Parts: sequence; C-alpha cells; structure tokens
Amino acid sequence: MHGKTVSVKKDILSANSKTAEQIRSGLDKHHVRMMNILSSPGSGKTSLIMKTINRFKDLYTIAVIEGDVASSIDAERISRLNVRAIQINTGGGCHLDANMIEKALTDLELEHLDLVFIENVGNLVCTAEFDLGAHKNVVILSIPEGDDKPYKYPAIFMEADIVLVNKIDVIPYFDFDLGMFPEVLNGINPSATVLPISAKSGEGLDDWFAWIEQTLT
Amino acid sequence: MHGKTVSVKKDILSANSKTAEQIRSGLDKHHVRMMNILSSPGSGKTSLIMKTINRFKDLYTIAVIEGDVASSIDAERISRLNVRAIQINTGGGCHLDANMIEKALTDLELEHLDLVFIENVGNLVCTAEFDLGAHKNVVILSIPEGDDKPYKYPAIFMEADIVLVNKIDVIPYFDFDLGMFPEVLNGINPSATVLPISAKSGEGLDDWFAWIEQTLT
Repeated sequence: MHGKTVSVKKDILSANSKTAEQIRSGLDKHHVRMMNILSSPGSGKTSLIMKTINRFKDLYTIAVIEGDVASSIDAERISRLNVRAIQINTGGGCHLDANMIEKALTDLELEHLDLVFIENVGNLVCTAEFDLGAHKNVVILSIPEGDDKPYKYPAIFMEADIVLVNKIDVIPYFDFDLGMFPEVLNGINPSATVLPISAKSGEGLDDWFAWIEQTLT
Repeated sequence: MHGKTVSVKKDILSANSKTAEQIRSGLDKHHVRMMNILSSPGSGKTSLIMKTINRFKDLYTIAVIEGDVASSIDAERISRLNVRAIQINTGGGCHLDANMIEKALTDLELEHLDLVFIENVGNLVCTAEFDLGAHKNVVILSIPEGDDKPYKYPAIFMEADIVLVNKIDVIPYFDFDLGMFPEVLNGINPSATVLPISAKSGEGLDDWFAWIEQTLT
C-alpha cells in the first residue's frame, strides 16, 4: 500500500477507536450491552440473532443494527419478530464503523434497552479492524467453511470473545475436525470460548444463551 | 467516508485499472488466459482449482497465484499437484490488486504458459472492485451460504462471467432454491452463465471444463 493510504487509514482507525470508546461509555451509563456479530456471508448471523431474540425477548428489551452492503432482507426478517431493527447499507463498504453505529444508536432509546446485536457485513477481513463500541465480539464460523479459517483470517479470530461453530447438524457431510478446532483457535486466541451450535436444529444453543446471560450480569 | 479517503481510493482504482490493462495485453501477447476465482471463505476455490488442474494438466501448462491474508496452506496443496503456485500474503489486506499480480507474473515464464488461475482472498466485497488483468471472473457461491447472496453482495455478482453454485452434493440439507437462482442472478447480471457443481463429488464439472476449453480457444 502507498504511504499516503497507510496514513489516511491510521487516522481513520484512531478516530474510529475514540468514537467506539464514547459509544461504549454511553451504553454503560444506561446498562445496555452490545454484541458485534461477525462472520462470512451465509454463516448464520441472522438465524442466530433470531433464535436469540426468541429466547430472550420476554426478559429483555432487544434491538438489532443490521449491516449490509446492499438490501434490507435481514432487517425485514428481524422486524417480523417485533424487535426494533435498524438497517445500515454501506453502499459497497466492506464493514461497519463506529460512526455508523453512533448514528444508528441515536434512533434507539437507550434508557429502555437491555441488549443490542450488531450484525456486521459478511466478511472475515475488514470487519476485524473496526471497534464498534460493542462489549463483546461474537465470531461465527460454520462447518461448511472448513476448520482452517483461523489460520487464513487470523485477525478476526484474535478479536473474538467467543467463536460459535455453527451448522453442526451437517457435520457428517463435511471434513471439519471439531475435536481439534479448539486447539487450532487457541494457537491464535487462547482466551476465546468455543461453542459448537446449530442455529437450525437448536443444538448447543442453551450454552450460547447461558453465555449471553453471563455477559448481561 | 471522508472526502480525502474517497479521492485517494479513486486514484488507487484508476492506477489499478491501468496496470490491469497492461497485464492483460502482456498475457495476450503470449496467448496466456488468466481467470480470477472469487468467493467467500470456504466456498471451494482451492478444491475447484485442484480438480481443474487434474483435468487439464496433461493438455496445458498451468500456474496458480494464491492470495491469502495469511498462511500458505493453499499454495502448498496446489504445489503437491506439480503445478507452479505463487503465494501472495496480503498481510491484512482484503483483496489482491493488479500490482501484486504484475509482480507475481514476473516469476512465471509466460512464453511457456497456457492458463493462470488467481485464487483471490475469500471475500465477497472488496475483491469486486479490483481488476487484476484476468480475462474472466469466476464467482463461486456454495449451497450452504444461501441463495440470497446476489442481493446482499451485488458488485461481485455483477462482475462475474460465470457463477459456479458449488457443493450441490449437500443441497438436501440446506434451503437453497437452485431452480430460482438463475433468475435471482439475472436480475443483477443478465449475461453471467450459471453452473451447479460439486467440486467434491465431481457433479457438473464436465460443464465447467467445457466452459474453460471454450475460453481457451
């Protein structure tokens, strides 16, 4: 990359981190927890968020910020659950940034909220660099993508607080070594929790719900 | 995005296009065809390239340029087929650019080559903007990712000459409407060919090989 680009990028990342810190303290003031959900396209971010809403919507007030390059398919799916969903279209941008989240949060009444999910743009690369002011980074890796992804996309796995290995209902049809995976991940990120789940069949979701409850208390 | 960033980005893209044109005419002079293979992480780029090498390596001289954020797992897999594989690590960058390809091509003897495959970084967003000097853009979408991806990541599907719908061997376990998919894609890109394949079982690969042969003549 050219020197000029690198310096512009540094400026952007440093401004982004400041905004992210402001967001986090604003949320803390109102006891709102925010989770940044990250994965490749089609790994199951929306399905996971929907199952989680169904589990917790009678206990907590939840909102979702939906990031997509284009379309509002996912925000429409979420809205059908009677939960507030705010769509951000990046118009070609490969990730959300803290400014977009700050703007989206002004549309939500923080004093009446408990939990915000951010569904980031489906991308294992650029999303990793931008702190969005969330309290936790949740990375989803699905079985069909393969167990070598932490080696190939280390930055995002380094930033993860928890890695959900999704679509374990189809594990018989793919070469994914679930037994070895925690070791693969630990080589890159020794502190991340690993949970095998199926957002479709529901397997493993109780562990995920327990993890959510723990982060809320 | 800030005005400064937009203008730097425009400069980069315009310089990239010029380099890409130079690459393409250099390849044309030596009758070499180059294909840019694009997809999400884990959609089957490497598996497809390996099957294609095995089909054509006695007929054509083939080389592969492997793009990854980190690691050289894929280049090692390719090298085992006795085909020249050049690894590019972007070190955090979410796509290859024409400069990287130009540099990689200097390590290859174009006068002895017929076919070059570029395996781009696994990413449906940033890779779309950068012309690499290839003759064809091959986009792979795998069944587990879902049939709504052209709506969500339109730019890359607009740039595709062919879309390979991979992993059709597992279609019974996923909600992917293969019958409707050509219509979904045509709404965004009316001229792209759609081929359902399984790089694993081999189903549909003959059509892909025929397409390759057609582009070589």
